[in-house]
Amino acid sequence: VGNVSKAPGEFELIARLTAKLRQSDRTILGPGDDCAILKPSPGSQLVTIDSMVEDVHFKLGWGTPEGLGARALTVNLSDIAAMGVVPTACVINLAIRPGLGARFFDRLYKGLADAATAAGVDIVGGNVTSAGALAITIALIGETRQSALRRDAARCGDEIFVTGTLGDAAIGWRILAGELKARGLSRKFLIDRFQQPIARLVAGQRLARIDPAPAAIDISDGLLQDLGHVLKRSGAGAEIDSDAIPLSSAYLEVAGANIEFALSGGEDYELLFCLRPGRSETALTRRLGVPVKRIGQIVRGSGVTLIPKGGKASVKASRFAGWDQLRTRGA
Amino acid sequence: VGNVSKAPGEFELIARLTAKLRQSDRTILGPGDDCAILKPSPGSQLVTIDSMVEDVHFKLGWGTPEGLGARALTVNLSDIAAMGVVPTACVINLAIRPGLGARFFDRLYKGLADAATAAGVDIVGGNVTSAGALAITIALIGETRQSALRRDAARCGDEIFVTGTLGDAAIGWRILAGELKARGLSRKFLIDRFQQPIARLVAGQRLARIDPAPAAIDISDGLLQDLGHVLKRSGAGAEIDSDAIPLSSAYLEVAGANIEFALSGGEDYELLFCLRPGRSETALTRRLGVPVKRIGQIVRGSGVTLIPKGGKASVKASRFAGWDQLRTRGA
Repeated sequence: VGNVSKAPGEFELIARLTAKLRQSDRTILGPGDDCAILKPSPGSQLVTIDSMVEDVHFKLGWGTPEGLGARALTVNLSDIAAMGVVPTACVINLAIRPGLGARFFDRLYKGLADAATAAGVDIVGGNVTSAGALAITIALIGETRQSALRRDAARCGDEIFVTGTLGDAAIGWRILAGELKARGLSRKFLIDRFQQPIARLVAGQRLARIDPAPAAIDISDGLLQDLGHVLKRSGAGAEIDSDAIPLSSAYLEVAGANIEFALSGGEDYELLFCLRPGRSETALTRRLGVPVKRIGQIVRGSGVTLIPKGGKASVKASRFAGWDQLRTRGA
Repeated sequence: VGNVSKAPGEFELIARLTAKLRQSDRTILGPGDDCAILKPSPGSQLVTIDSMVEDVHFKLGWGTPEGLGARALTVNLSDIAAMGVVPTACVINLAIRPGLGARFFDRLYKGLADAATAAGVDIVGGNVTSAGALAITIALIGETRQSALRRDAARCGDEIFVTGTLGDAAIGWRILAGELKARGLSRKFLIDRFQQPIARLVAGQRLARIDPAPAAIDISDGLLQDLGHVLKRSGAGAEIDSDAIPLSSAYLEVAGANIEFALSGGEDYELLFCLRPGRSETALTRRLGVPVKRIGQIVRGSGVTLIPKGGKASVKASRFAGWDQLRTRGA
């Protein structure tokens, strides 16, 4: 343990990193004081916090510092997207370790700043602290004047939809970790899906205009895990048509008919949402501006039942919820 | 690198820790969804983030888990206190490591929750992530309808005041680290000053009612360092009467006339503020509800000049700003 206070080098670094940041006129006072000051907000405020830790959530060699910064913010933006609201401001805590120079942090912050600008988010505060490993922890604030999309809003009979394709990021991660192989465009697609996720902000905001407000969640920890959160909070169960789960052609090329990555692999950051019956995939795809697939329905009871195409032979999803098992493949 | 998604154990832990939390009616939706939802706020919003890392900012053996939790929140509350506003809500990211059981985290969260309740703060969101060391990162939100106390508001001629006594926490920390010795009540007082800091919330809020709003900062990194931030942001210098710096009797007992701990030791969490001339220590002490001492004045130029009692022989404070030097005494 050194002196518990901040080292001069930490002050210089955070001053350097935050000096170039620009804020919108929503921000009265940006980085550099004890707190940032934001204008009063007419809407409800939403708050979330998430963290990415070196050698737990990423390895430095896997991508660029800019990409890491962008991904750290995107992961947080996805939580805002899942509530269907508008992200406005964030504060960033950087745990730094020896061996990473000023140039690395400049590039990391460039990725953070560019992602923030693209999402209309002001970076209003930063903090740097020493640690044994690099970690980026972001608290993000959002705002809405309408109903947010909550996990507890699913009702029996609701149809369950997801955006995009599932499982790509989990395969991309395994390619980077050397556990799976892929070539050419498929390899690039799958790795990009892990390293450059997209927060479905616009789709979420458009979903929030539907009345009643749909239940929704972002798929950050795998379909079964995240659907499970919706079911638990809503006091319901779900039947999933396992053949309806949207898989990319690159996924099929690498994993074939094995849907385990789509069921239990995380980091997709697609949205799952539940709607009263009667809306078509086509209409929703047009409305949300992103491909939408119907994968099942909310039913009485609890937990997820997987139903293969045409078949009656359903399988309780706990059989597939093999996160720990998948996990032990890693280091 | 394991699976990058959240482990089921992490979900269970955060669900367990946040289940018992109670929020005020300002909070529409607490922990358990993608974001928390707070009611619209009529005042300006203030945001800050800070982090405490094991073996950098604390050692587990030094105190109780409850005390650690309380201290983690207090350190953040102090940033809100320094702006003179009312803290309202926080989100907490817990980086956990192997070897710490559920009972430890229950106790840590009890400390966090009790400190939050005492300060009128809702814990509205929590996140748990695996890491190599325990770290508690808190983003705290505050609110005000009046002017906040900013670092950039100091003007030439302002008198500089501090609350409480300085340097106690730095000595307490060195006692815990085995670098300094003290006995009996002095030992307990100094260690408590490090481990149980007080955020000067009421004093800060009362200061914010003075017109014009004083410049202020909390002394978390030592008098010289933090005064330096005020001077830099305000474009001014300061003369400090080194004999006026308030020292506790326990400080004097351990360190005698050596004011280095008061100048450069951190973790005091007292307030430093600057007022147009003419207010007495007595009147301010009564007004703020905490002992207030005048230690110098804002002058043209930059940096801090230390002036010994009655003497003309001033010393440029860089001579004392020996943070790194003190730091190397540690591990």
